[in-house]
Amino acid sequence: MTVLVRAQPLSRESFAAFGDVIETEDATSYTINAGWAERFHDLAALDVTAQSGRPTVSIFRSKPRPVPVTLTLMERHCLSSQSFVPLSSTPFLVVVAAAGGAPADSAALHAFVSNGRQGVSYHRGTWHHPLLAIKQLSDFLVIDRTGPEEDCDEIEIADWDIKVVIES
Amino acid sequence: MTVLVRAQPLSRESFAAFGDVIETEDATSYTINAGWAERFHDLAALDVTAQSGRPTVSIFRSKPRPVPVTLTLMERHCLSSQSFVPLSSTPFLVVVAAAGGAPADSAALHAFVSNGRQGVSYHRGTWHHPLLAIKQLSDFLVIDRTGPEEDCDEIEIADWDIKVVIES
Repeated sequence: MTVLVRAQPLSRESFAAFGDVIETEDATSYTINAGWAERFHDLAALDVTAQSGRPTVSIFRSKPRPVPVTLTLMERHCLSSQSFVPLSSTPFLVVVAAAGGAPADSAALHAFVSNGRQGVSYHRGTWHHPLLAIKQLSDFLVIDRTGPEEDCDEIEIADWDIKVVIES
Repeated sequence: MTVLVRAQPLSRESFAAFGDVIETEDATSYTINAGWAERFHDLAALDVTAQSGRPTVSIFRSKPRPVPVTLTLMERHCLSSQSFVPLSSTPFLVVVAAAGGAPADSAALHAFVSNGRQGVSYHRGTWHHPLLAIKQLSDFLVIDRTGPEEDCDEIEIADWDIKVVIES
């Protein structure tokens, strides 16, 4: 039987156990460049240099999933945070589970919807679904780690038959 | 007498002496997420960990300058690259001078215009003008270094009376 998981609006508070929300809303800032700019400083705890890792910047171009979105896989990076910031100002879904043992069932999953101006930075070890663009082909700036070894654990969940619906 | 500097279209080749252009155009990619996304991997040489530095992600919100833009100041960071990626898909200007001694006059300056999908990453030591948004209030994702010491040299150039014009 299909399990429906409801995506709630992304916020710092609701996402704190899993990572950081990268956004200016309610963030402190200070003026720079002789008044021409505001700096919202240090918005996520980047954790990308363990075991000879180096910080890496990439762009992911993600195809939109049909809504409601069917979940297929959860993954985690035990050596690195991983940050995604939308470049297309388009809402997307974020599905996570707590760091630690692999999620056992749908009750372990938490779904959020970004307003399109919010990025996320998963803490090291947070289980997360691969990118879930929903509206259009969407580019994301990604900050993660390049290191000498693979750093991705995966668990297939397609047969859990979970769909994410967006709360209105 | 006002000196006019012409901004040329930003490209990897023309910008190579000063830093990296962060864009998907003509970048190689590989498929990830079971075909749902393309990864344009490792688009800039981030250099942000010297002398106990840690990588930092921030958002700069920049007011648009009147065009033609009057240049006021050049700065450099001797311990770090600094990367700017537009979040508003809006063109902006980039003005740089080679790393090394401070630029002596307008002939040392090079001006570029980003198409709004192109970010830049200044190499460590590259002289650059503070952010030059030109169309509208514009947000940029910024990746740089936080460290125990200040890392910014500045030179005032307002009295050089330089304006940047955009080549059409």
